[in-house]
Amino acid sequence: MNQETMIIQAPALRRFIRDALMVAGLTPASAEIASDVLATADEFGVTTHGVKLLAGYLRRLQGGGARTNGQPHVLDQGAAWALVDGDSALGLLVGVYAMQIAVAKAHSAGISYVGVRNSGHFAAAGYYSLLAAKAGLIGISVANDAPSVIAPGATRAVVGTNPFSYAIPAGRHPPLLLDMAISTAAGGKVYQARMLGKPIPDNWIVGLDGLPTTNAELYPDEASLVPFGGYKGFGLALLIETLAGLLSGAAVTFGVGSWMRTADQPTLHGAAFIAIDPAVLGPRTLFLERVDRLIDELHGTPTIAGVDRIMVPGEREFANQQRAQQEPLVLSPDVAQNVRLAAERVGLEIAEYL
Amino acid sequence: MNQETMIIQAPALRRFIRDALMVAGLTPASAEIASDVLATADEFGVTTHGVKLLAGYLRRLQGGGARTNGQPHVLDQGAAWALVDGDSALGLLVGVYAMQIAVAKAHSAGISYVGVRNSGHFAAAGYYSLLAAKAGLIGISVANDAPSVIAPGATRAVVGTNPFSYAIPAGRHPPLLLDMAISTAAGGKVYQARMLGKPIPDNWIVGLDGLPTTNAELYPDEASLVPFGGYKGFGLALLIETLAGLLSGAAVTFGVGSWMRTADQPTLHGAAFIAIDPAVLGPRTLFLERVDRLIDELHGTPTIAGVDRIMVPGEREFANQQRAQQEPLVLSPDVAQNVRLAAERVGLEIAEYL
Repeated sequence: MNQETMIIQAPALRRFIRDALMVAGLTPASAEIASDVLATADEFGVTTHGVKLLAGYLRRLQGGGARTNGQPHVLDQGAAWALVDGDSALGLLVGVYAMQIAVAKAHSAGISYVGVRNSGHFAAAGYYSLLAAKAGLIGISVANDAPSVIAPGATRAVVGTNPFSYAIPAGRHPPLLLDMAISTAAGGKVYQARMLGKPIPDNWIVGLDGLPTTNAELYPDEASLVPFGGYKGFGLALLIETLAGLLSGAAVTFGVGSWMRTADQPTLHGAAFIAIDPAVLGPRTLFLERVDRLIDELHGTPTIAGVDRIMVPGEREFANQQRAQQEPLVLSPDVAQNVRLAAERVGLEIAEYL
Repeated sequence: MNQETMIIQAPALRRFIRDALMVAGLTPASAEIASDVLATADEFGVTTHGVKLLAGYLRRLQGGGARTNGQPHVLDQGAAWALVDGDSALGLLVGVYAMQIAVAKAHSAGISYVGVRNSGHFAAAGYYSLLAAKAGLIGISVANDAPSVIAPGATRAVVGTNPFSYAIPAGRHPPLLLDMAISTAAGGKVYQARMLGKPIPDNWIVGLDGLPTTNAELYPDEASLVPFGGYKGFGLALLIETLAGLLSGAAVTFGVGSWMRTADQPTLHGAAFIAIDPAVLGPRTLFLERVDRLIDELHGTPTIAGVDRIMVPGEREFANQQRAQQEPLVLSPDVAQNVRLAAERVGLEIAEYL
């Protein structure tokens, strides 16, 4: 693998992603939305879920598995819920569409659920939760995926990494933002280690015998991911499968396609978005003050030697994003390689953005 | 400690709990409800959260910290949400009251949130989720608690064990039922090891230096619990604190009292109950079939040597409950001791129930 990093300004990265998606057939408005989803992940430092995914998404848009003219739409709804058909549009677009509906409904109903079927891989789940928090609401977003994670005691995967995320708006502080796979490590991190030729910790994957291995090369054909916290993380995966798949009418487990392996078939991913508007339940400012006080309390917790201060969920990501406004992003070799691949796919000169 | 076990039929255990609570001042109807919450945990084999807690609850009812005449009531509500004041009634009664409201609202709204303040310790969170599943709904119940769990990198507890549970109704199968603390082990398990004089695994607690210890004696004064899965479990704890405490208007973190240390003061626990009615979103039978298929698929997953079959969440508990209909319960010495203590508290002869 080419071991060169790539140095790029965040606004230029956003432009590149938008331009590439437009060449692949998205409208300017859709390309702008999808670009924000991916570039935000890179600015956050969540490099496994940012522009690194673009080449794969372009391949699917070009292959027809992700429909450039897909129109996400509401199948059925009530005051506090909706079912959305993603029409096999890019998962990022379906996610933004669905969370916006969840936010609008929660503004009046207090809480809302939006279930999504016929969607695609939606990159970082936290982006959608944060959409809600930016509107002053608590946001939760989850999705299912093709199986890559074992049940404790099993030798074969049965559920996806089923991301779980939430965002909680604060007053003086940035929102609390958690975005996690229910595996000890996201599949993307194993791929990254494989591309970089690095061994992985022994609690990330198990081989076909169900025993731990540190060899990232085995994944995904001869190894599966392990749920975090054993039966607890696995139990959470089943709730996510239920909210994102069983309840939404989406494909589940082996019915969900791999967005990396096929380019011409829809993946039929499911997702779910829940929003809660604190302002419906009481004074908004009071809620935000309570969140601020909790964050202050966490910051004031005594720490072990070597740890300056407890960081709350999302704090590191928002600090990274701040930095990305002053300093260029340094894309690691695995990401840089995928960016070059993306540029080639759509015939853009990456040099023009650097 | 008295090392004797106690053998008791499940119906007799239910009668004993109900009678003891009536002597302590609850009405027959309330005593019946609370008895079902505790006895169900024992039948499930969740012995840390069953009758073992009764003596402590009786002490609080007698001391006035839990009000025998407390009347949980709705403070404010919409079609899809409610805020409940527990009026410092026994947490078990507040929990049942609140989940019943959540179920009723979700029957029409599709999804509902009920936040609870001025409540008390509510024993096993799973009981309330299961109430929803028995009515055909997905139920989620969470609560906060007095701090006993550290943030990763901290030396002092800052959040409670903040239980998280869900129940998902199935067709041919019993519901999926997960009930877990966000600590690697519930505080009750550390107390149990302490009472039984057993060492504990090194990932349950850390001492005042923030380093792991296997000495259960240190807990809770000189040790704190560790969140499961590191920052992921801790992140989940903060979402629970938000739903159960910040959003409901309940006490949070150090504002929540210890139900074991004081008998005359309300503990001001918060809790949250979310219900989703699949039948509002689509045909109920279709949803139940989808859940059944997922369970069948999990059961069919190949296993490692020594594991017969993957058990789904709750499966062991329902099997235990079945068994408890034919065979008497054998209460371990730590539980038996607390049962004798409970009987003494209210002047009942436990022998009359054995």
